[in-house]
Formats: sequence, C-alpha cells, structure tokens
Amino acid sequence: MVPQKQHQIRAEGYTVAFDTISANTSGRTDIIDITAEVEGAIRASGIKNGSVLLFISGSTAALTTIEYESGVVNDLRMAIERITPRDIDYEHDRRWGDGNGYSHVRAALVGASLQIPLREGRMLLGTWQQVVLLDFDNRPRKREVQVHLSGV
Amino acid sequence: MVPQKQHQIRAEGYTVAFDTISANTSGRTDIIDITAEVEGAIRASGIKNGSVLLFISGSTAALTTIEYESGVVNDLRMAIERITPRDIDYEHDRRWGDGNGYSHVRAALVGASLQIPLREGRMLLGTWQQVVLLDFDNRPRKREVQVHLSGV
Amino acid sequence: MVPQKQHQIRAEGYTVAFDTISANTSGRTDIIDITAEVEGAIRASGIKNGSVLLFISGSTAALTTIEYESGVVNDLRMAIERITPRDIDYEHDRRWGDGNGYSHVRAALVGASLQIPLREGRMLLGTWQQVVLLDFDNRPRKREVQVHLSGV
Repeated sequence: MVPQKQHQIRAEGYTVAFDTISANTSGRTDIIDITAEVEGAIRASGIKNGSVLLFISGSTAALTTIEYESGVVNDLRMAIERITPRDIDYEHDRRWGDGNGYSHVRAALVGASLQIPLREGRMLLGTWQQVVLLDFDNRPRKREVQVHLSGV
Repeated sequence: MVPQKQHQIRAEGYTVAFDTISANTSGRTDIIDITAEVEGAIRASGIKNGSVLLFISGSTAALTTIEYESGVVNDLRMAIERITPRDIDYEHDRRWGDGNGYSHVRAALVGASLQIPLREGRMLLGTWQQVVLLDFDNRPRKREVQVHLSGV
Repeated sequence: MVPQKQHQIRAEGYTVAFDTISANTSGRTDIIDITAEVEGAIRASGIKNGSVLLFISGSTAALTTIEYESGVVNDLRMAIERITPRDIDYEHDRRWGDGNGYSHVRAALVGASLQIPLREGRMLLGTWQQVVLLDFDNRPRKREVQVHLSGV
C-alpha cells in the first residue's frame, strides 16, 4: 500500500476563495443535495488543485456525504430518528421551549464541517457520493453553507 | 442557489501557524467550551482569511460544535450514553482493565477533527454555535487541542 | 488556557501534494489501520509543517481515528451494529436489492473526511491514536483513500 507517483505542485500563486451557498429547507431532517452548488463555487474560484472546506453556520444543521437516492436518504433519516428520537424529553426544551432539543443533539453528532480534495477542478467524490446538507430544525430555515476554497 | 460575488485573495504571503490549547477536564463526558481559546489563537496568528483546523490528540476525546447551553449540553451527554452505554460489556475492558472501552468508542464515533473557515479574523460560526471539547475518558485528564491555522 | 509561543511560518514556497492509498478490504465493517501508509505519503511529499486531509471516495466507507487494538476495534464494530443494525428493513434494499442500505447509513454517520495537522513531518496524533478506514459494504472492496497534503 506504499503510495507511488505522488503529484506535487510548488504553489507560488496559492489562492484562497470564499463563497456562500444559500438553501431554503423544510427543516425536520430535510436532507438536500448541494453538490451542484459546491461545483459552481469551485468553477467560480478557478482553483484546480487544493481543497474545499464546507461548514454549516448554525447549531441545528450538519453536513455529510451520501448516495443521494431517496431510499437511502429515508434510511438515514430513520436511523437518526432511532438514535436521537424526537419524542423523548430534552432539557433544552424544558428550559427554552424551542421544541428543538433533538435538533441540536443531532447536529452535534453528525458534525458541521466537511472537507474534500480537488484535482483538476473536480471534487474527488465517488461515483455515487453526493454532498448533503441536513437540516434538523423543527421548522423551515434559510441556511448558509460557508464554502472555503484553497489551492492553485 | 448559484454562488455570486465570490471573495478571492491571491496569496503570496500565505502563512501557517500552530498553537495548542490545554484544558483540564473532569472526564466522564465532560463537555468544555473552547471557543474563546480558539479565538485567542486566531488573533495571535494575525491570519485574517483562511481556516482553523482543530484536532484532539488522544483516542478518548472528540471535538464538535453545539449551542453551549447547559440544557442541550446535558441532552447531548444523555444521547451519547444511550448510543454507547457505559455499563455494557466492552472487549477493551476485559483485555486491558482500563474500564474506558466506552470512551474509545464514543471518541471514534464523534471524531477528532473539526475545521472552520476564517473571514476578517473571525470564525464563521452561527450566533449560537460554540466549539466544544468532549472528554469521554473515565477520569480527569489534561488535554491538548492542536490548532493549525492557515491563510493570509 | 490562553495560547502562548505560537509557531508561525511565512510560506512563500507553499506546496500542495496529492496521493492515493489503496486498500483491499473484506467489507462488513472491516476496520483497517492505514497510519503507516499516510506516514509514507507525508514523507514522499517532503512537507514538514501543514496538514493532511484524508477523504474516502465512495458512499459505503468512512474514516476516523481509534486506538488500533483488536478489543476496542470490535467494540466499535458492535456499537455501529447496535446503532445501525444490519438486519432491519432498509428502503434502499427494497428499491435496489443491493442489501447494503445499512452500509450507506453507517458511512454517512461516521463521515468521509478527516484532517490532521503536521509538525516537523509528523501527524499530531496521540500515542495510542491511529488512522483507520472503515469499510461498511457487504462484500470485499478495493478502496481508495485520497490524501491531500498542504504546507511547507
């Protein structure tokens, strides 16, 4: 498994670029494919070799990758419901009355950041692997995914 | 959702900086807000636009983001206890007698790394989103969070 | 906890490098230690200070860190089986007949990316912390872990 033929670039003109992807979600573990939007941000940056860091600003949403096929997306939704059920008691809800204690817990477990390497302007995703935003809040939200690109 | 008005910097003076945040924890799924310490490391670096990579050295702790409010922090603690209970049998404990098999499993599931973009010297966190260290070990520990900053 | 004595490098000769680690897995939550292969890629790059981004191309595998000791590795495997059981009904399987709906869900929950800072050519891992590839698919697979190095 020793790596061979490593591709290296001495990067005098290293570039950093920032973008934002906005998405309107329905909440309630809405899972949205944002792959095309991330690809658009990559093209706009002109960065060919480097990485894209995705970060969701907010404490009731998360990012991951999955095969964006409605069956498995529902399976993920049901797994999350089993792991962190909506209909049990949450201290957050007793204290603040938001009713979204479960949303915060889900977001903390799945995670807010995701980073993907870029080669020749393309994310090194698998064929059946898409980038998704998961909105766990208990109401529709306007979300902002922060996109940070770096490379040459 | 097409990104517009992307902010780009051609970075001749790209800087990398390293720091360490030390924290004394009580273990037992102690969850500590380290946001202010990360902000201090960012200020010390002088880096304005780039990203901060946080990594916990050690196999019984993890990093994530959450609204640091004691109700939801307890909710997260209880969710983790349901998912990976302390009081079931772990092979690690039978073999090594550490009693912290559950701590290792929790750390592997939540994850050791977290990365957040920086704009104008600030992490692009949501208003109610803090950076937390989770110490799953079964005793107090002195922890070191590795901070790697890069940007311009 | 205020950081002190920060180490900084003004990086004119910033380098980005790409590598691939190939691994043959048995699937079925096979958990493989790839630390030595990642160390080989770091050495080949010559990068001393920066970070290594690891990303698994594919939607039925994931990456994390753990103490690579067979007891705790089995404990992690059993925890994942409890959280996302193989023998329940998955929509993905009814639709596509792959029988690996559980694999996709596990991969989405554990996560595809992992990033580790590098100092003096070494990953800042804890003493008992290894980098692992988790293959959740229901059959043997040839996997490719994407390695993206950046730094000086």
